Amino acid sequence: MPGIALNEDDSHFFFTRAGKSLTEEDVDALVDQYAGTQVSHLLFCPNAMRASYASRVWDPIWRGYQPDAPDDQPLLASLTPEQRTGARRWIHTAWALDQAGIDVYARWIARARQHGISPWLSMRMNDVHNADDERCYIHSEFWRQHPEYRRIPYHFNAWPDRALDYGRSEVREHHFKLVEELAERYDFDGLELDWMRFGFHFRPGHEGEGQGVLTAFTQDVRRLLDGWEKRRGHPIRLGARVPSRPQTALGLGMDAVTWARQGLVDWLVITPFWASTEPDMPVELWKMLLAGSGVELLAGLEILLRPYPESKLFQTNSLETVRGAALSLLQRGAQRIYLFNYMDSETTLDRPEDYAPLLREVGDVKQMSSQPRRHVLTYSDTWAVGEPPAVTLPVPIPADGWHAFRLHIGPRPEQADVFAVLAFDLAQGAAGAAVALRLNGEECGMAEPVKLAAPCPAEPAWRFRVPLSALQEGYNVIEVEARAALTITWVELAINPRAG
Amino acid sequence: MPGIALNEDDSHFFFTRAGKSLTEEDVDALVDQYAGTQVSHLLFCPNAMRASYASRVWDPIWRGYQPDAPDDQPLLASLTPEQRTGARRWIHTAWALDQAGIDVYARWIARARQHGISPWLSMRMNDVHNADDERCYIHSEFWRQHPEYRRIPYHFNAWPDRALDYGRSEVREHHFKLVEELAERYDFDGLELDWMRFGFHFRPGHEGEGQGVLTAFTQDVRRLLDGWEKRRGHPIRLGARVPSRPQTALGLGMDAVTWARQGLVDWLVITPFWASTEPDMPVELWKMLLAGSGVELLAGLEILLRPYPESKLFQTNSLETVRGAALSLLQRGAQRIYLFNYMDSETTLDRPEDYAPLLREVGDVKQMSSQPRRHVLTYSDTWAVGEPPAVTLPVPIPADGWHAFRLHIGPRPEQADVFAVLAFDLAQGAAGAAVALRLNGEECGMAEPVKLAAPCPAEPAWRFRVPLSALQEGYNVIEVEARAALTITWVELAINPRAG
Repeated sequence: MPGIALNEDDSHFFFTRAGKSLTEEDVDALVDQYAGTQVSHLLFCPNAMRASYASRVWDPIWRGYQPDAPDDQPLLASLTPEQRTGARRWIHTAWALDQAGIDVYARWIARARQHGISPWLSMRMNDVHNADDERCYIHSEFWRQHPEYRRIPYHFNAWPDRALDYGRSEVREHHFKLVEELAERYDFDGLELDWMRFGFHFRPGHEGEGQGVLTAFTQDVRRLLDGWEKRRGHPIRLGARVPSRPQTALGLGMDAVTWARQGLVDWLVITPFWASTEPDMPVELWKMLLAGSGVELLAGLEILLRPYPESKLFQTNSLETVRGAALSLLQRGAQRIYLFNYMDSETTLDRPEDYAPLLREVGDVKQMSSQPRRHVLTYSDTWAVGEPPAVTLPVPIPADGWHAFRLHIGPRPEQADVFAVLAFDLAQGAAGAAVALRLNGEECGMAEPVKLAAPCPAEPAWRFRVPLSALQEGYNVIEVEARAALTITWVELAINPRAG
Repeated sequence: MPGIALNEDDSHFFFTRAGKSLTEEDVDALVDQYAGTQVSHLLFCPNAMRASYASRVWDPIWRGYQPDAPDDQPLLASLTPEQRTGARRWIHTAWALDQAGIDVYARWIARARQHGISPWLSMRMNDVHNADDERCYIHSEFWRQHPEYRRIPYHFNAWPDRALDYGRSEVREHHFKLVEELAERYDFDGLELDWMRFGFHFRPGHEGEGQGVLTAFTQDVRRLLDGWEKRRGHPIRLGARVPSRPQTALGLGMDAVTWARQGLVDWLVITPFWASTEPDMPVELWKMLLAGSGVELLAGLEILLRPYPESKLFQTNSLETVRGAALSLLQRGAQRIYLFNYMDSETTLDRPEDYAPLLREVGDVKQMSSQPRRHVLTYSDTWAVGEPPAVTLPVPIPADGWHAFRLHIGPRPEQADVFAVLAFDLAQGAAGAAVALRLNGEECGMAEPVKLAAPCPAEPAWRFRVPLSALQEGYNVIEVEARAALTITWVELAINPRAG
């Protein structure tokens, strides 16, 4: 059973447990909920630009915080009143735990081991949340004081423009200091370098030189961990999170294949950034590239499920859509499912009550295979600078035109009701009857209106019964013949297994 | 010196040498022009759906031809009068050579060896020229009599819809018969399976099963050639032409990496189909995938250079644009340049007088490095069924908006005048002054109008001087800041080396 690796970020616990004085038991309880589930690895994230613990080498999140002062204190000055209250939940809770002498990360690591869950730390290598607000409490003084260290000093379009430039030794040294402290302070099974927060580490056009820079940095980290392996008397693994496609990873300066072939990393998570789960990551290509390296390949899932970049929808996954993505990615060769932003909160899944079942299911192909699942067409949200993005939807089709879509379903069900699901832009007012569908060349049934559970398109959806004989493992091609001009905004294969 | 492999197609010679009775010397002369050039390999193509020689297992191109009948004879009935005259040049010339007892391919193979050029045959595995015209002379009776063997019996949008379905044993056997005849009849150094004529070999959605089918077919061919190696007493290589990106090749049923790792092929040509030269093929990704296999990787160039799929321009390359593509692809790790449709004719290059120099240059990095070259942004013209295409141009940019482009230039020149070149859609009437450029973060000069030699955009072009200090080997990022709303239709880096 492949199992699940779960990332606990640097703020969620403090935000969600705020407002009371926390005990060691309250801290341990975060980990306890994963005992007896399919979660085999917990990756605790200790930092963004600041650390959520009492770091001696980086700013703790509470640097400049006045516990007894009102919300309008200097550290929070740039925020709205509501934001101040929110921010303070993180800052104050982390500060109070430190005051109480409780090292949250040390406790989590120990507690995870007690439960037989492998404890890791996952360090964000270049987090730029709120980079539009220079004064935001979340930023390090290092970043604030050195605008000249940023990727793009000459304009600002998006947070990553202000990410730090790893082409500069000062930036690499600043981050290596935290790696050293984490390795000394915490006895983890593995350290993950999270290059996907936020994925942009070099000045535009300098990603080529960047490949050698990040490989050398990874070598330094591996060497450091080799030393700690001896002291700790157990292996210490090194992992990385990188973009979902090898050429894009390379184009952003992340030569993950070389890291693997040099034996620097033994854990590689391929993942979108954030904007949507990416069920169609080219796992088999990564497997070919990693063949013989012994590196464990994990498929990273995010919580949002969105059909295309401009979509106004910001819906999270349901258990059914996570099953669809996980089943496909595992069947393609991913060795474990990696959940990012899947933390215990009301907003993680479309139905909060699905959280516990999800932890007991989506790491196991056999279990998922007998359950309803949805394979939804999305897109890749991360591309190298200047690399043309490939996005499918929305697709305009002229009257009497055709378009082909493909969806990877993983294993083929023995017995199932299978439907192709489409939605159309309302502008042209097309109904389901305006199209005829084939799956892998075989005709599908007539359109029926269908009320989808979330996540779902903004427009009315139509389903078309797919003959089970047409369905096959792996990729399935849906050919749509449009009788009237229309624009397709949603494409899905819904599979409801039946007892054979 | 990597050198050049050149493909001579199945009809060009007969078309261009028509109208007189040809001698053995006339036939040999085709090969003689490549002696003493950088052409190290000549790949002669003997077939499309018919054979251009007196095949006993496939229809010769002259099947049904009446040499003494007028143009309106049955074989040519479906053509216009002009087309009939043209077609007859091919058919009659091939027929007449056979009548004269001249085996063109046998002579070419022998002649190439005399000149120290390695002779190959390149078999088109699924050619569908003119598939819209069922009665066209070019089609085989096999194809005509078996519509049920075609990929898509249920609709017709483009020629490849009527390509034969390799999922059917009858189709595989039909093609294997020709492989057997070629291997028995001709003593070549290597046989290339050209899967890029036309690149679509399975019913939509059945490409996954197709991977195993084509790998098994390739195994059969390799086994056949093993037998002929013994009889001929020399090695016989096996090659393949596949799409430029590994994931697309796989998605179309061509598992080239497995062919390489199983030792079935020792020659792999990555290439676009036809619509444009593709200077930015991910060579380094293929190198990683082929590492240790000993397979020779060739970069395939086509004759057209087009900025985007909808472009009305159908211009061929100039020597400068071929240099740009070849230099970049060789520096990325391609071991040889492969020229397809670069045959001796007035229309192959923008300036016919560049043909001879091209053959003496574009296989040699050192020679090209000192010459003017143009790196033009194009696109990939081949995608798996349902795979979203990634295309850069045209790019609309709002007023005060930004866009980043990247171009791979290969090696960095020591001394050179370097210009970024852009063109804009005329609709918005933007001039060069409407944008400011940076290359890899450094500011470029002010816009100057420039008259480009072909190939060039339909719209006026503007050039911006690039500081040499900003230029670097490999990818270079051009960031464009637009003061007014405009749409970019052409992006290029022009490099004119100076004596140091």
